[in-house]
Amino acid sequence: MSDRLRTAVLGASGVVGQRFCELLSAHPFFAPPDLYGSERSGGKRLSEVLTIPEARISGELLESRIAHADAAAVRKGGYDIIFSALPTKIAGDMELELAAAGCRVFTNASPNRMRRDVPLVVPEVNHDHLSIVKGGGGFIVANGNCSAIGLAMGLKPLQQFGIRSVEVTTLQALSGAGYPGVPSLDALSNVIPYIAEEEEKLRHEIPKMFGTVESGTVKSASMEVNATCTRVPVREGHTESVTAVLDSSASADAVAAAFTNFRSLPQELSLPTAPTVPVILTQENGRPQPLLDVNAGEPERARGMAATVGRLRVAGNTVRFVVLTHNTIRGAAGGSVLNAEIVHRQGGV
Amino acid sequence: MSDRLRTAVLGASGVVGQRFCELLSAHPFFAPPDLYGSERSGGKRLSEVLTIPEARISGELLESRIAHADAAAVRKGGYDIIFSALPTKIAGDMELELAAAGCRVFTNASPNRMRRDVPLVVPEVNHDHLSIVKGGGGFIVANGNCSAIGLAMGLKPLQQFGIRSVEVTTLQALSGAGYPGVPSLDALSNVIPYIAEEEEKLRHEIPKMFGTVESGTVKSASMEVNATCTRVPVREGHTESVTAVLDSSASADAVAAAFTNFRSLPQELSLPTAPTVPVILTQENGRPQPLLDVNAGEPERARGMAATVGRLRVAGNTVRFVVLTHNTIRGAAGGSVLNAEIVHRQGGV
Amino acid sequence: MSDRLRTAVLGASGVVGQRFCELLSAHPFFAPPDLYGSERSGGKRLSEVLTIPEARISGELLESRIAHADAAAVRKGGYDIIFSALPTKIAGDMELELAAAGCRVFTNASPNRMRRDVPLVVPEVNHDHLSIVKGGGGFIVANGNCSAIGLAMGLKPLQQFGIRSVEVTTLQALSGAGYPGVPSLDALSNVIPYIAEEEEKLRHEIPKMFGTVESGTVKSASMEVNATCTRVPVREGHTESVTAVLDSSASADAVAAAFTNFRSLPQELSLPTAPTVPVILTQENGRPQPLLDVNAGEPERARGMAATVGRLRVAGNTVRFVVLTHNTIRGAAGGSVLNAEIVHRQGGV
Amino acid sequence: MSDRLRTAVLGASGVVGQRFCELLSAHPFFAPPDLYGSERSGGKRLSEVLTIPEARISGELLESRIAHADAAAVRKGGYDIIFSALPTKIAGDMELELAAAGCRVFTNASPNRMRRDVPLVVPEVNHDHLSIVKGGGGFIVANGNCSAIGLAMGLKPLQQFGIRSVEVTTLQALSGAGYPGVPSLDALSNVIPYIAEEEEKLRHEIPKMFGTVESGTVKSASMEVNATCTRVPVREGHTESVTAVLDSSASADAVAAAFTNFRSLPQELSLPTAPTVPVILTQENGRPQPLLDVNAGEPERARGMAATVGRLRVAGNTVRFVVLTHNTIRGAAGGSVLNAEIVHRQGGV
Repeated sequence: MSDRLRTAVLGASGVVGQRFCELLSAHPFFAPPDLYGSERSGGKRLSEVLTIPEARISGELLESRIAHADAAAVRKGGYDIIFSALPTKIAGDMELELAAAGCRVFTNASPNRMRRDVPLVVPEVNHDHLSIVKGGGGFIVANGNCSAIGLAMGLKPLQQFGIRSVEVTTLQALSGAGYPGVPSLDALSNVIPYIAEEEEKLRHEIPKMFGTVESGTVKSASMEVNATCTRVPVREGHTESVTAVLDSSASADAVAAAFTNFRSLPQELSLPTAPTVPVILTQENGRPQPLLDVNAGEPERARGMAATVGRLRVAGNTVRFVVLTHNTIRGAAGGSVLNAEIVHRQGGV
Repeated sequence: MSDRLRTAVLGASGVVGQRFCELLSAHPFFAPPDLYGSERSGGKRLSEVLTIPEARISGELLESRIAHADAAAVRKGGYDIIFSALPTKIAGDMELELAAAGCRVFTNASPNRMRRDVPLVVPEVNHDHLSIVKGGGGFIVANGNCSAIGLAMGLKPLQQFGIRSVEVTTLQALSGAGYPGVPSLDALSNVIPYIAEEEEKLRHEIPKMFGTVESGTVKSASMEVNATCTRVPVREGHTESVTAVLDSSASADAVAAAFTNFRSLPQELSLPTAPTVPVILTQENGRPQPLLDVNAGEPERARGMAATVGRLRVAGNTVRFVVLTHNTIRGAAGGSVLNAEIVHRQGGV
Repeated sequence: MSDRLRTAVLGASGVVGQRFCELLSAHPFFAPPDLYGSERSGGKRLSEVLTIPEARISGELLESRIAHADAAAVRKGGYDIIFSALPTKIAGDMELELAAAGCRVFTNASPNRMRRDVPLVVPEVNHDHLSIVKGGGGFIVANGNCSAIGLAMGLKPLQQFGIRSVEVTTLQALSGAGYPGVPSLDALSNVIPYIAEEEEKLRHEIPKMFGTVESGTVKSASMEVNATCTRVPVREGHTESVTAVLDSSASADAVAAAFTNFRSLPQELSLPTAPTVPVILTQENGRPQPLLDVNAGEPERARGMAATVGRLRVAGNTVRFVVLTHNTIRGAAGGSVLNAEIVHRQGGV
Repeated sequence: MSDRLRTAVLGASGVVGQRFCELLSAHPFFAPPDLYGSERSGGKRLSEVLTIPEARISGELLESRIAHADAAAVRKGGYDIIFSALPTKIAGDMELELAAAGCRVFTNASPNRMRRDVPLVVPEVNHDHLSIVKGGGGFIVANGNCSAIGLAMGLKPLQQFGIRSVEVTTLQALSGAGYPGVPSLDALSNVIPYIAEEEEKLRHEIPKMFGTVESGTVKSASMEVNATCTRVPVREGHTESVTAVLDSSASADAVAAAFTNFRSLPQELSLPTAPTVPVILTQENGRPQPLLDVNAGEPERARGMAATVGRLRVAGNTVRFVVLTHNTIRGAAGGSVLNAEIVHRQGGV
């Protein structure tokens, strides 16, 4: 284990930061991370700021102290890989500064996602976009909005039929709002039918994920995506009700087979955090459910990394389905870790 | 008050039955109902079987005893109006038997909804369909599925632009499953993405509601409706995320004005249970919310009778919005009471 | 209505402030209040900062603007009565300053509760303590901690038997923590077995409420009170499981009769916000429940003002029971309004 | 693994039955169980009747079929050990019949708990009571009510000071009511202050657990236990607020040390399901919480087997604390499995 890559997690005390810590607690490629956080959490032990009790973080990491995250200190750390869960306000500049200084940044933050020189990668969907950061030197690889990642996983098996447009209503979990996030008086027994900037992210990120690399930058696909995003009183797991219009009709059997047979590069490479089956198709009517399916993904290390698709209905060139993903694992930290595993295996870091 | 019509509520002990009792507790047209229920609740006082504490039922009615609901006993009661919240299994036959015997039945049950001789009426949407029961004698007037009623309210103001097709994802409240309904272990922090037969009801009932009367029966409109129905941990209030494709483009202003200006016959007649504004358009991003808007509707007697529409977005001939309705008031008992008020005012009973 | 007393609410935008607004929306003694709040809410309309949708505040009051609450501005208002729901940090000094300037302050804030010259009054429990502010001039009347008020209501009928000591475990509602209060990620499906400073308040306030007036100040009773305070995922309504040890044995019938027959000054004076029956004794095993009983209290204006006691068990000189009160009405704003009604009726303001 | 004992689980499809399956999925002493259930679940695979998604049951066991549980069929199975999670109605007779036929039954059911020839054993509390079943032949060992087990764990470290009486208020999880259990309309945002027969169980079972073996039967201790049992909207984990009066005063330090140092036979024997630390004392004010502490217990196999005690306060001879236990693991299936491990290790089976 002595030759594992040296890593850091920026924004370690947040909900996504804690998930990074869980996934890096005992990783075969990556050493346990150094932790960086805000001034508020700086100097504290991770265990003192923990807000996701179910995250399975190693005892050693729980007792690590969080350093204050200024770019100079991080640069001086000389890390092989930096995972960023920085807050939106400071992520944009700090990530650019680190990349310019030669750091390899895998980020869950949103500010740099739509830059043409930053690939926006869901590993099973568009790992080929990682080619644009293979020139050596520093770079940023972004992983996408949590709902966009889930939607991209659900759409990818349909790409072979051509995807003309997508209509989606999301039912998003409370953990997606971070901590303290949604006040309990607003959440209990309620639906909030709006999440700031979320619908725009789905509209722009999905076409970029399904885009093509041209001259070293990403050109978005022309697919139209319209979303209505809601918050529901669910702890963890984003549910999305999707209607996709294909370029041409497909039979119900062909569509079901497309979901069932779907595998991608992470599965071929048997990467540590890759689920054996990335998209699980369930035929049971009441599924997927957050309670039952949010942690889908085998082997154990890939828990929460599989998307579950159910309620599949095909009518002409219209496909309807419900997709569920774990928003802070597959939809956040896990996506970035799997991106890093690909780049590492392909020699990029 | 001595000349108020004599009424009965069938299925009085259920969730919808209790709402009928609330709405008829002190009604200007209708006398407090005699109560009929299952063998299990027969002989008990309404107060002993109460499951909706927030229903504002008069003390007198709470102390009424529930009789066992067999058709013969009900017929013998000689009621001017019968409100039915009978369970699906027995509603079909018993309502037909009562109508054949000359009773006027206003029902919330589903079995007879799609019969060509039964109008399926949301008062503000298609009160003109009531014409097919005006011949005198017994009849059945159905009010529609709870989600269909909410959707119809949201769509009605758009009818002037022509409605070609509708795509809807519902987030339905627990009370819609009745009592005991959904086990708490399934409901807490979860979404169940399926409700048996609900999507078919939306598919068939909406076109019937927007249909036309021809030769004394209803011909459904050709509008296509596709639904994905989910259950969320909300006590009361169905939220629906709707995408409607119009026959032709409309400006955002024209669509907003259509919602804002919408009034219908119940408003013109100032019926007791009619809300002054049947569809409330909110411009606030986080609205409508079940907690904040489920009881919309003025005056006091029309509490829970108004639909609230929000998140209105218009793009070409596509209109997206979220509509919220109180599923056991507007979406059930209240709809039937308002139907009965129209028929009464028009001399049909 | 023109001779109603002029009032102000300080801290109007908070959870308790909104309840004051509800109770003063159309009060027979008190005119609708002028509203004062923090710098953050200053200048806004009440409707813009509303967080308790179920509070029934008049449309006029909802459209009032909130002024910034500095003591000088409030003093200049020349109000007959000032209701304070100020935050703990500033309540202490500002209330003392106002009282010194001749204002009559009825407060829900905690800082001045234990001052010997401030009566701590639950109207039905120790209205006689109001005598110490009857000298004219400014004063502060405090109403007590929300759990202490509920507990005092439950204990008062037992006072005739002598109360030696009390052991209580509270199950407190989320609204008691104000807004934003408890994060939903902490509240959902959880119990938090600690509420800062709450147990100390119960320990000190209950003996003061049951104390005696001597030489114009209050001397606490010698009763020992021990509490364990927990937060549960309930929107509104504090449940308290109480074990009281009496000075001597009492029969189960005598204790039940003490609860059933209990009435006090607010009932004798038929004050507007006084419930006809201040403590409702239920014999049903599963009661009181927040869902079913939190709004207990008749007539309509006294909704949420009655305590409900259930699970009564008597063994020798030990009495066990569960008491439920509406924590932001009876346990906060309503208590102060009822105190003001007594003082007004007795000529003190 | 070929010499592991042959086992059966009766009542396999219930909430506790599923926990038995989890704990026996890969047990070093006990082979995976044959499954028996009601007529309704008979013939089905375990996976088809699963209601606790988070139970980590082996894939093989999930695909096992459940046989109909009649006593003759079970007897014919010739099992070394039978774990019973039978429903109350049939458990009493069937367990007695099996024991009479020579079977060793470890039960979670209540009917036989108070029989003088049935030891009621919480492993760390009164393992010595197991001596009364060591004569060979069939027997029943009961594990106790879920709240009683948690309370006994919390009290055991205090036994050295003598325990005179106990006052407890429980806040019990929904899973304790089984499935379907509490309707969501009753559970959401509510407290139900009564659980049928629960308080009597605590009153009788605790003294039996702390009793002594005399002439081959158990004589209950004279300790008085009074309980108020409530249901709260928590998925898993019973919280109990306890006041214990000791025979004599103890210092806060001595009491804390008693908790911290507490170990018992299961720890000495390093049994597979024994937590290294059976009672964890936390000094943090807001703990224990179901969300954070319900799964306490190391190593991995003992997850959910440790009790967590917090809010410890000592005043004279009165000790107050809050104890949390996993009600379907430590409070049910896990308790019986650990009992069986002791008996097996001591040669009793």
